[in-house]
Amino acid sequence: MKQTRFFTYPLLLALFTFAASAQATDALTSWNNGPAKKAIVDFVRKVTKKGGVDFVPPPERIAVFDNDGTLWAEQPFYFQGLFALDRVRELAPQHPEWKQQQPFKAVLENDMKALAETGEHGLLELVMATHANMTSEEFTQIVKNWLATTKHPTLKRPFTELVYQPMLELLTYLRANHFKTFIVSGGGIEFMRPWAEKVYGIPPEQVIGSSIKTKFELRDGNPVLIRLPELNFIDDKAGKPVGINQHIGRRPIAVFGNSDGDLQMLQWTTASSGTRFGLIVHHDDAKREFAYDRSSIVGKLDLALAEAPQQHWTVVSMSRDWKRVFSFQ
Amino acid sequence: MKQTRFFTYPLLLALFTFAASAQATDALTSWNNGPAKKAIVDFVRKVTKKGGVDFVPPPERIAVFDNDGTLWAEQPFYFQGLFALDRVRELAPQHPEWKQQQPFKAVLENDMKALAETGEHGLLELVMATHANMTSEEFTQIVKNWLATTKHPTLKRPFTELVYQPMLELLTYLRANHFKTFIVSGGGIEFMRPWAEKVYGIPPEQVIGSSIKTKFELRDGNPVLIRLPELNFIDDKAGKPVGINQHIGRRPIAVFGNSDGDLQMLQWTTASSGTRFGLIVHHDDAKREFAYDRSSIVGKLDLALAEAPQQHWTVVSMSRDWKRVFSFQ
Repeated sequence: MKQTRFFTYPLLLALFTFAASAQATDALTSWNNGPAKKAIVDFVRKVTKKGGVDFVPPPERIAVFDNDGTLWAEQPFYFQGLFALDRVRELAPQHPEWKQQQPFKAVLENDMKALAETGEHGLLELVMATHANMTSEEFTQIVKNWLATTKHPTLKRPFTELVYQPMLELLTYLRANHFKTFIVSGGGIEFMRPWAEKVYGIPPEQVIGSSIKTKFELRDGNPVLIRLPELNFIDDKAGKPVGINQHIGRRPIAVFGNSDGDLQMLQWTTASSGTRFGLIVHHDDAKREFAYDRSSIVGKLDLALAEAPQQHWTVVSMSRDWKRVFSFQ
Repeated sequence: MKQTRFFTYPLLLALFTFAASAQATDALTSWNNGPAKKAIVDFVRKVTKKGGVDFVPPPERIAVFDNDGTLWAEQPFYFQGLFALDRVRELAPQHPEWKQQQPFKAVLENDMKALAETGEHGLLELVMATHANMTSEEFTQIVKNWLATTKHPTLKRPFTELVYQPMLELLTYLRANHFKTFIVSGGGIEFMRPWAEKVYGIPPEQVIGSSIKTKFELRDGNPVLIRLPELNFIDDKAGKPVGINQHIGRRPIAVFGNSDGDLQMLQWTTASSGTRFGLIVHHDDAKREFAYDRSSIVGKLDLALAEAPQQHWTVVSMSRDWKRVFSFQ
């Protein structure tokens, strides 16, 4: 009897463990079986295996995700850029001077070539003029209204439906394995927070992004935060590890990106000792989404792709590794 | 039989509920029964009561705590200030010019009056000279070493033992009620993170504080973050709501402070609609800790104390409301 129990208990345990793992893996239903899915599952099994050499305690299971091009689409242009253009058009009646003044003139004349020529500086000017001089709460409402009423120019879907189904499953899978998931995006922190919780299950305090300065003020005795037309932080490229350190205060163990803007956070995350995981989403699926990499202006992927093999970063081929791209496909 | 069950179930439920509440309240064993403890428990019961008009869903149960003077002691001077002075003494051999140069000269001559005369600017200069020009990881190690080897000048205890036992219990009580607890301190974010998890149970990503700028760099191919002698953000006074918004992205529902440095976050938190809770720790206990408020240089409490009654902020009298101040008492 005693011997029977002795054999039975580990057997039961093994069965339960197997069932639990299988269930967790089945969460990745939109991933084709292949090297990318296998690399993810192998990594998660290693760092969650109690007593294993690669075990990482739950509080240290930090996973960071880029947003544009990694969690949702970014073509033909970053969605926040499209939002800024719409804001210029909306605010134009209050700014007659914009008709003669770049980069606003280019937007109002729909001259994307002239707009591109104003470069990063022009884009920043657009953001300052359209994202500031209101309270944080007012801005949140403007973002929500825009998302509720605007569709993607070619895919004709609300932007919040243009999130990658395999990545949603990955977020869920990691959280089920006691990971804490963060967004680390070049996009505006207050542009993402109003919808990230509903769409990705990521609460505002786990969203890191670029920001403008804000100022505390009492307005008729009522405390408000005013958004100022002044840059605070650009959470892109070498800014990403800085933003991660500022907000999280410890190094992630897993990182997910899709462009050269994610290169430094890929390096920062995977360089530390212990089992670490880096993944790049490669947009090679013109049929179901878009195909772009080295020569793209938006979401350019060149240096990071070249460095991937020697760094052992997993490169996801959207066309090969994903059963579907969006939930509606 | 059926009727018996009908009566039995609610009765059992009531008993269990009572037991659960009682257990949760018993967590506050270092609090004397009185208006402060009652206000805390009433607030928590209201916002956690499912179906109640004051119910707040768990993800929105954000509680923010000042650190110096609210969670641990701050006399005779902020502990990070004492750390900076020790750092000046340690680095002095490499800086012979400091002997002739304020504020360093004052520190090396132990002339606290001359040091005070250099004001906030002097203090900032000390921080820049002693907290920068190293990697974030090196700084973390320096902080840990200092805390492990240094004792409070009069209380003769390690600084990490000079945390308020009733506040530790309050943190635990709130977390047991599904609150997420954050530190929002004027102190350095990278000075607090190395020990906040162990001492308070607050992970690095829930610590908000002042900071200097950091820069990402590849050193011999190894990515590091270098701390620059350049101010990034001061998380004090009107900076606290800004820091809260930047890091958390939603308004807390409970706020705990002890000085005028916490005034604006008290206003910001308690001004929003719904049941909100503000609390001020009043240091009136010279026997067990220190007694100071309106005329103190460190932890001055004047405006916030004056505003407390009209704002319905709970004022804790350390001498009246706390059974003990430190765990070793």
